[in-house]
Amino acid sequence: MTKFDVQLGERSYPIYIGKNIREEPTHLSRHVHGGTVFIISNDKVAPLYLDAILNNCRKYICHHLILPDGEIYKSLDTMNLIYSALLKNHCDRDTTLIALGGGVIGDITGFAAATYQRGVNFIQIPTTLLAQVDSSVGGKTGVNHVLGKNMIGAFYQPQCVIADLSTLNTLEDRELSAGIAEIIKYGLIGDAEFFVWLEHNINQLLARDSNALAYAVQVSCKNKAQIVAEDELEQTGKRALLNYGHTFGHAIETSAGYGNWIHGEAVACGMLMAASLSMKLGWATEQDYRRIAKLLEIAKLPTEPPEDMQATEFKNLMAIDKKTRSGTLHLVLLKGIGKAVLTSEFPAPLLEDVLREFCKL
Amino acid sequence: MTKFDVQLGERSYPIYIGKNIREEPTHLSRHVHGGTVFIISNDKVAPLYLDAILNNCRKYICHHLILPDGEIYKSLDTMNLIYSALLKNHCDRDTTLIALGGGVIGDITGFAAATYQRGVNFIQIPTTLLAQVDSSVGGKTGVNHVLGKNMIGAFYQPQCVIADLSTLNTLEDRELSAGIAEIIKYGLIGDAEFFVWLEHNINQLLARDSNALAYAVQVSCKNKAQIVAEDELEQTGKRALLNYGHTFGHAIETSAGYGNWIHGEAVACGMLMAASLSMKLGWATEQDYRRIAKLLEIAKLPTEPPEDMQATEFKNLMAIDKKTRSGTLHLVLLKGIGKAVLTSEFPAPLLEDVLREFCKL
Repeated sequence: MTKFDVQLGERSYPIYIGKNIREEPTHLSRHVHGGTVFIISNDKVAPLYLDAILNNCRKYICHHLILPDGEIYKSLDTMNLIYSALLKNHCDRDTTLIALGGGVIGDITGFAAATYQRGVNFIQIPTTLLAQVDSSVGGKTGVNHVLGKNMIGAFYQPQCVIADLSTLNTLEDRELSAGIAEIIKYGLIGDAEFFVWLEHNINQLLARDSNALAYAVQVSCKNKAQIVAEDELEQTGKRALLNYGHTFGHAIETSAGYGNWIHGEAVACGMLMAASLSMKLGWATEQDYRRIAKLLEIAKLPTEPPEDMQATEFKNLMAIDKKTRSGTLHLVLLKGIGKAVLTSEFPAPLLEDVLREFCKL
Repeated sequence: MTKFDVQLGERSYPIYIGKNIREEPTHLSRHVHGGTVFIISNDKVAPLYLDAILNNCRKYICHHLILPDGEIYKSLDTMNLIYSALLKNHCDRDTTLIALGGGVIGDITGFAAATYQRGVNFIQIPTTLLAQVDSSVGGKTGVNHVLGKNMIGAFYQPQCVIADLSTLNTLEDRELSAGIAEIIKYGLIGDAEFFVWLEHNINQLLARDSNALAYAVQVSCKNKAQIVAEDELEQTGKRALLNYGHTFGHAIETSAGYGNWIHGEAVACGMLMAASLSMKLGWATEQDYRRIAKLLEIAKLPTEPPEDMQATEFKNLMAIDKKTRSGTLHLVLLKGIGKAVLTSEFPAPLLEDVLREFCKL
């Protein structure tokens, strides 16, 4: 097992990464400070892993709530369900919420923890690759609004993250690839050496080789922890680099309807579109672009937006993304593989060229 | 005009107190950092004061949303309305929300600011006495849940508070008294000298004497700022002292239905009930109790719970208050006037005696 800290002063917390560590009660007991835990999971993950967690929680008063699986449940309505369940069970401020599931469960549970009685503790037990390498680390929590993804939320850090690599064995291939998209992102935005490692080891990852997965999760989490430590609240521009591909990706997710494209898929396509714009600006080479396209394709990730998505719709959806500041669209672009920058310095016609080339309509 | 700071490190902010200061554009311009403001008010306050604020915001892109007046609108449904309005107007992270109204508007707007796009700036312009001396200061934001008051929320500090004493002239007598209840609270929990001043000046306050009001608002805000600076997140027990009378009061508000009893009225009755328990414990004298009862009565505040409220209902509602920690009810009680303590060290039968004596049923 590996352990390292996200360095955030009094909000610092450890990430534990290892096989079967969900069955180890000491990680939980070290980070649950009151007498009550409330586990939130979904109907896909709970049948597989809830019993092990309940077993580790025998010394606490223990409640759980099983939500339906899916991004459409990442909503204010679900928040209200959670608040009601917490109140009906008389959960007080000393309750620790436990998120057992993928990114959706982690985001919802974190936001519930941030806002229930003005803040209670929570623990992340991510069970998808995407959640382990990205969404469970860094304290972004929240839900979607019909008018935009992740528009409601808070920065709120967990007490710890327990990433059990064994849970990846039950993951669908599509979910595995979606997680690999975010792993590739870390290579692209700041770790050229890791990108080369990925080019050499992508087939091992797809084959779920446990050593390859362990290495990829560790490097990804360390990259993310480093960036979050430098810019917890996304104020200096550093943390925004983690949104590479996401402004394009969110537009795809909104257009396709949440859940039809899963997050990592939309980000994969978005990363290639951002690479295309970077190339048109002369910041990335054509060879960079081809290497990115090739790695995404081998990883079985989409490199084209939904067939029915129009360039104008794409542009409008990008305009309401959170990366817009004071009316100006900011994008994360590449100055070559391993070097991302946040910028609004791109000619609008170039972006329109990219949208027209990628959209069939 | 008086100005002083709530000392919270990088989250410090000033409180401006004075007559007609809403008409002074410099306070706003010093604290609005982006190009867009979004004013949230209600249909009672907006006709009186919105124009003055709009006038001060001419150099910004300026939107506003007028909600119906009333505690029943302090809900997740209203939050969703606000999020929709912000998104429809393409408000980005550089938007500053402005709360123009009483405690309900301040709490709602603050929570919207805490959770819209994971946090935007906001400014408090409280227009009721209660909001000026209490709810606008200290960063408690949130909404109610059908199962309990203020159960959903966040600690989130404003950029500044602009307390215009002139807005108190249009306040209903009942609202004035409700604000005086919280002012009396500061005397009771930590400022015996101020309590004596209140005993001598209560009639001037009721007559809206502007010097008396100015002094009472200043002393109250300074008391609150001091306590908040010591314990921003209500972790050490210090800030909890501000909840004196509130656990009883919240039970009354929930039982009566939000809005039938206004907050300050419920707190007034709750403060006397807490004083009664303090007396039964031998911590406060009978004379203390009588002085408190007398001051509340002169201030035209209720000193008995709703007629149809049963002692058992009262007890059950108190059990789900946020002051419960790990299943144990904590109450703020008095060791004499000017000295409050947070404690769970009281025999349950004594609390039941208090509830039975105050409740007719």
